[in-house]
Amino acid sequence: MSQEAFQDLYTESFSYCYGCGRLNEYGHQIKSYWEGDEAICRFTPQPYHTAVPGYVYGGLIASLIDCHGTGTSAAAYARQQGLVPGQDPYPRYVTASLKVDYQRPTPLGPELEVHARPVEIKGRKVVVEAWLIAAGEVTARGQVICVQVPEAMAGS
Amino acid sequence: MSQEAFQDLYTESFSYCYGCGRLNEYGHQIKSYWEGDEAICRFTPQPYHTAVPGYVYGGLIASLIDCHGTGTSAAAYARQQGLVPGQDPYPRYVTASLKVDYQRPTPLGPELEVHARPVEIKGRKVVVEAWLIAAGEVTARGQVICVQVPEAMAGS
Repeated sequence: MSQEAFQDLYTESFSYCYGCGRLNEYGHQIKSYWEGDEAICRFTPQPYHTAVPGYVYGGLIASLIDCHGTGTSAAAYARQQGLVPGQDPYPRYVTASLKVDYQRPTPLGPELEVHARPVEIKGRKVVVEAWLIAAGEVTARGQVICVQVPEAMAGS
Repeated sequence: MSQEAFQDLYTESFSYCYGCGRLNEYGHQIKSYWEGDEAICRFTPQPYHTAVPGYVYGGLIASLIDCHGTGTSAAAYARQQGLVPGQDPYPRYVTASLKVDYQRPTPLGPELEVHARPVEIKGRKVVVEAWLIAAGEVTARGQVICVQVPEAMAGS
């Protein structure tokens, strides 16, 4: 049985995020999956997602790391708690702090791979380390500090 | 005489950035201006720039802080060097490191104000502190470390 994307397990009210909501028709609709102990998101930018010509826009890289980070936080918490995907209520995390180091320009064209690994799960907080690979090279590294939000926040 | 936006002073080849390029028809086309010693960018998100319903997408906030940061770096360097806007070649900066702390949810609807102040100008590097105001409250704070790029990079 194939694995469902983390983002496809969010409740309907939490599925409108521009970066990762399956119900936001204007957004990136990123999808994240476990591959062993790492979470992976693959995304191919559009030609207009450029910074300096030929390279990927840094704001998009920050967005991918951000949303892949919150998704990985949810999945890591769910896994730690033994929640059953598609059966138990799935948590939703938002970003408290995001840091991205752009180590070299990211070429625009190839599919990007965002890798993430939870490094701390403590109460409602999860810390995720992420790195972006383009054309076989790590071009950016990030850290995302995420906090679980109550379902009630979705109604506001 | 009204002030030109920092981004309108970039050379043509550096004006395709998704966040701040005046020639990227799909992008945000943000505009930054001096107001005394602070640089200000005003931007009204689209309804689909949402995270959790009712609040602004964090990736957009990171993007605004990022591009306003590089613009402010260019303007701060130009001011320090006594360059004449529209006459002397205008520098272009890219982001080496971006950090955003999301201090509270940013309401979706009102115009956002991104404020920035250069805190270090050293050689080709500029460090900018930024903060986002929505509906009269600071909702996020950021730091952007920017590096000046050579014109040659635009051709790749």
